[in-house]
Amino acid sequence: MATNSVPHFQEELDQLKSRLLEMGGLAEDRVRSSVRALVDRDRALVERVIEGDTPINQLHIEIDSRCVRLLALHQPMAVDLRFILSAVKINTDLERVGDLAINIAEAARRYAQHAPVKKLIDIPRMATIAQTMLRDSLDSFVRRDTDLAQRVLNEDDKLDALKTQIFRELLTYMLQDPGTIEAALDLILISRHLERIGDHATNIAEDVIFMVSARDVRHHAGEGQPSH
Amino acid sequence: MATNSVPHFQEELDQLKSRLLEMGGLAEDRVRSSVRALVDRDRALVERVIEGDTPINQLHIEIDSRCVRLLALHQPMAVDLRFILSAVKINTDLERVGDLAINIAEAARRYAQHAPVKKLIDIPRMATIAQTMLRDSLDSFVRRDTDLAQRVLNEDDKLDALKTQIFRELLTYMLQDPGTIEAALDLILISRHLERIGDHATNIAEDVIFMVSARDVRHHAGEGQPSH
Repeated sequence: MATNSVPHFQEELDQLKSRLLEMGGLAEDRVRSSVRALVDRDRALVERVIEGDTPINQLHIEIDSRCVRLLALHQPMAVDLRFILSAVKINTDLERVGDLAINIAEAARRYAQHAPVKKLIDIPRMATIAQTMLRDSLDSFVRRDTDLAQRVLNEDDKLDALKTQIFRELLTYMLQDPGTIEAALDLILISRHLERIGDHATNIAEDVIFMVSARDVRHHAGEGQPSH
Repeated sequence: MATNSVPHFQEELDQLKSRLLEMGGLAEDRVRSSVRALVDRDRALVERVIEGDTPINQLHIEIDSRCVRLLALHQPMAVDLRFILSAVKINTDLERVGDLAINIAEAARRYAQHAPVKKLIDIPRMATIAQTMLRDSLDSFVRRDTDLAQRVLNEDDKLDALKTQIFRELLTYMLQDPGTIEAALDLILISRHLERIGDHATNIAEDVIFMVSARDVRHHAGEGQPSH
């Protein structure tokens, strides 16, 4: 399909991949910063996360346009078509991860107004797992690596277990000392936001497996799990 | 492009629309049932919601396949291409709404193990708004009605205000009587799930405006709002 006026298909696909990786990097940075802002009670960093979603939003729009253009100009078939449709979905997932970083930062801002409930260990651990899942899911996408995608799916249980543990622990604090209720609530909400970031990485990994193997792994494990 | 062996494009588009509307109806029913199960403390209904996501998951897979087939066989251009890409995204949103109904039902199951914290008025109100937003967003999609889509976007503020009000009220209960903490937490989580259902309707409405007018209304209002 490529003519002189239309960039080569493969070149455009490569640009699409690199833009998605760039967006994934931004999303991961924002998650990391939001949790660091929480742990360090760093209000300047909180504000930077809350105000700093323009680059990711611009990439979101750009990647969507690239996908539409690729489909319209090159009318790709089979594996390339599935690749571009996966890119459309992954783009949406990454944009939501960026929004969740804002939610975490907003909760961190409120949390900083109270005395710390406890030393934060499990929340940074959840953040690290979620970030790794995100990075691995994107790597599995660009490398079309279903083994790596499967490992991302397996990681989700760890996140779920930590979320449950955090909930139980904070509930105990709240029951023992109602003065901790407001701050503990924010930590519970943050653990939910991190869980959802893991869910987005899971979505990406499922798309990769579908894209590569045309096998639909959705709607088997991982659905309808208890929410704490 | 249509030949005797390939169904007519318009016919397939119409089928895609009707399947999406069917899925939207199922998603809306599941939200309604989950909140009725909460209000009526109806454990049988709770279990029906938790166990009943197979039809929506099957539609999710079917609609995805229909979109891939439409793109591969008919290589649509411009407005039809945007329509099908919107269908891919809307399909994902509706599947998540189905999952959120499960989350609500799980919280309702836990809530039923405690004494009621209060008479539930605002949560059913949130549910009604979210369901209407969902229905209107899908109607705006099949009718390509951007005015209706815009009205969906405007409704989101009501949902946000109710969520904030519910949070403040429940916080007061928790502080006054720590015996209500566990039950109140579940109500707070349910209000968040309903807010997210409204977010999915908002996503759909934004896709409709983009599809019809090729105008991107995302990343202006409605992003980065305080989360309570």
